[in-house]
Amino acid sequence: MNKNSRRLATVVIGDEILLGQVTDTNSGAIARAFGPEGWTVTTVRTVGDDPAAIRAAIIAALDEADMVVTTGGLGPTKDDITRDVLMSIFGGMLRHDPEVEANIRRVFSLRGLDLNRLTAAQAMVPDSCTVIPNRFGTAPIMWWDRGDKSLVSMPGVPFETEGMLPEVVDKARERFMPGAAVRHHSLIVSGITESTLAELLEPFEEALNPDTHLAYLPNAGYIRLRLDSTAGEETFDANVNDLRVRVSDFLLYDGDATPARILIDRLLERGLTAATAESCTGGNIAHRITSESGASEVFLGGVVSYANEVKSGLLGVDLSDIERFGAVSQTVVEQMAAGACRATGARCSMATSGVAGPGGGTPDKPVGTVWMAWCVDGKVTSRLFRLPGNRARVIDRATTEAILGLIRLITN
Amino acid sequence: MNKNSRRLATVVIGDEILLGQVTDTNSGAIARAFGPEGWTVTTVRTVGDDPAAIRAAIIAALDEADMVVTTGGLGPTKDDITRDVLMSIFGGMLRHDPEVEANIRRVFSLRGLDLNRLTAAQAMVPDSCTVIPNRFGTAPIMWWDRGDKSLVSMPGVPFETEGMLPEVVDKARERFMPGAAVRHHSLIVSGITESTLAELLEPFEEALNPDTHLAYLPNAGYIRLRLDSTAGEETFDANVNDLRVRVSDFLLYDGDATPARILIDRLLERGLTAATAESCTGGNIAHRITSESGASEVFLGGVVSYANEVKSGLLGVDLSDIERFGAVSQTVVEQMAAGACRATGARCSMATSGVAGPGGGTPDKPVGTVWMAWCVDGKVTSRLFRLPGNRARVIDRATTEAILGLIRLITN
Repeated sequence: MNKNSRRLATVVIGDEILLGQVTDTNSGAIARAFGPEGWTVTTVRTVGDDPAAIRAAIIAALDEADMVVTTGGLGPTKDDITRDVLMSIFGGMLRHDPEVEANIRRVFSLRGLDLNRLTAAQAMVPDSCTVIPNRFGTAPIMWWDRGDKSLVSMPGVPFETEGMLPEVVDKARERFMPGAAVRHHSLIVSGITESTLAELLEPFEEALNPDTHLAYLPNAGYIRLRLDSTAGEETFDANVNDLRVRVSDFLLYDGDATPARILIDRLLERGLTAATAESCTGGNIAHRITSESGASEVFLGGVVSYANEVKSGLLGVDLSDIERFGAVSQTVVEQMAAGACRATGARCSMATSGVAGPGGGTPDKPVGTVWMAWCVDGKVTSRLFRLPGNRARVIDRATTEAILGLIRLITN
Repeated sequence: MNKNSRRLATVVIGDEILLGQVTDTNSGAIARAFGPEGWTVTTVRTVGDDPAAIRAAIIAALDEADMVVTTGGLGPTKDDITRDVLMSIFGGMLRHDPEVEANIRRVFSLRGLDLNRLTAAQAMVPDSCTVIPNRFGTAPIMWWDRGDKSLVSMPGVPFETEGMLPEVVDKARERFMPGAAVRHHSLIVSGITESTLAELLEPFEEALNPDTHLAYLPNAGYIRLRLDSTAGEETFDANVNDLRVRVSDFLLYDGDATPARILIDRLLERGLTAATAESCTGGNIAHRITSESGASEVFLGGVVSYANEVKSGLLGVDLSDIERFGAVSQTVVEQMAAGACRATGARCSMATSGVAGPGGGTPDKPVGTVWMAWCVDGKVTSRLFRLPGNRARVIDRATTEAILGLIRLITN
């Protein structure tokens, strides 16, 4: 990608990740923390709790990168063997670290727990490394330097790794010369397919210098375009402007933000409030919106109306309409949208009623059939979607479409 | 892990994953699909859209494993270069595949789109591979055999890879002798820390044969214990029984299931129905429950009451109590729980009111303060939690605790 930037390799350790029982999010958090400092991630290697595999991955990572971050394989239980592998690579003997023990005692007393023998063993650290006290958990963070290279071993618990990354990045900044900064800018577009967009942008891409790259990140319902560059600020800004003009007909957002974040910002700008009435999305629209900080300024609340009685009781949907047209119908979802505004006092609403599957499909309304309605200041609009995929995918896509639909209605 | 089982290595391709902008879930889906067939995943390597890095990762993977699965780096846009790298390794020339083109036309017409030039280029495939038609998208799935080894190249879109995995696993089963089956059994325990549990289970672990391994998978609010073994069925069952007895005081569930799945099953067994009243969890409890298929048999619905007026209007919370004690208080959350049952007609409910952050904390009620209440057949209980972490973590943990709390109440 960029010859000037420092190279970082990540090693993710844990049987549970290799087996697909837990999804690794630490490697992404590490990339996001180091990226803005001019670091380029070369490879992420995921290995199980196996000393030989851990050792091979670490040695390969040290070979290709200036800095290696490992995550996982630390902790009080038996399947944590990373420390021993690291000592086999970097040498050293175990020593008792009173500060680490004090930290373990502090964390346990905060959680109202007694220190036991296995946890106390975590206070033994190799004398060949520098310890960074873990403010979010008990496993010490260990840093080794060897020649021009460094390795830091971080815990597997995402909360601890994410919490400690700023300090680890600070230490890396002290040790390494800064690399050439990598600039990123994203644009969110919708209403165009990836391949049509790629055709539209072919001349733009061909005119780019080799230090600049355009990536297409398709999502359910929208595409994120990301320009990465190690060019100077002026050239980069000119490229971003050019891209902005070319996609202006499809531009949903200038920057990188989730649909929920975009919606909240648009509602704030326009002094509007919103509510939800969810059947097939089951609370996920409300969850996505309230996952963003500051949601309470524009989001008043909503109803998850799984049972028909809840649709009628809380949202005022006419039960005879449900009987006549079915819960998954235009008239019901429109009544839900209007009911959400009435029940909460919000000026805007999103409503969904559909068949998420795996059961419940009929020839007329197969799995993936979703009716959606929006209400803005009393005016209700609705649309039928036929969404592909399994239950999780239908819920996810319907959630995104409901949010995108309201963004469009209040933007135009 | 197991010498008899076939070895599988995965290569995940995409700048967006290395940069931490998208979380890879395909490698986990691949592991879950191949694991029950006796395959052991050795390493997952994640690399960017860089031909040299892709090539190096594939060659290392082919070196260590019998079967390599790549995911990503296929598609209509310019940053998709995997096909060319694979041809540089396996040889061959591009040929036009009429079946692939017909499939692309079918997918596009289903989605109501016109076929354009870039997408048509996907119909060109190397003549050195076997094509598995992609029923879920346009990028063809390519399979190569070389000596005793095979490589299959799958798309990056999770929906397509997950959808096509059964056919890929079938093909692998035809080509490779079955490995020794790996047996797994999980137990979900709660109410005990990881290290105390590890002390309790130390004699159990020490008595295990080398072909059997116990893993601790801590989650927010509970721990999953997973026993993996290539031993025979009888030995394995005896080990599982032994483990079951040892953790019986803390056993929440015998098997592997999410808290939401456990709750739904317990409600079904007892003929109960449930509802939610969510403030700080913002719909996530309802979302988790409705993500499970069959939720509609026991879950009636709920209210997301972000604004105080929604707490009073839909849940009947006394506004003067909110003024006097604050929205995050025992009396308010208890009224919310009772109100959820009353509003929906459900026999059980979960309610949350807390400070998820980053704003809204006070010295009395700092970020992470969450009041929770449950109502079962009119009887309301409540509990105060002080949860660590950022907004996402507080929401996630509070959601789990609300569900676990109701499971305990209806189980005892």
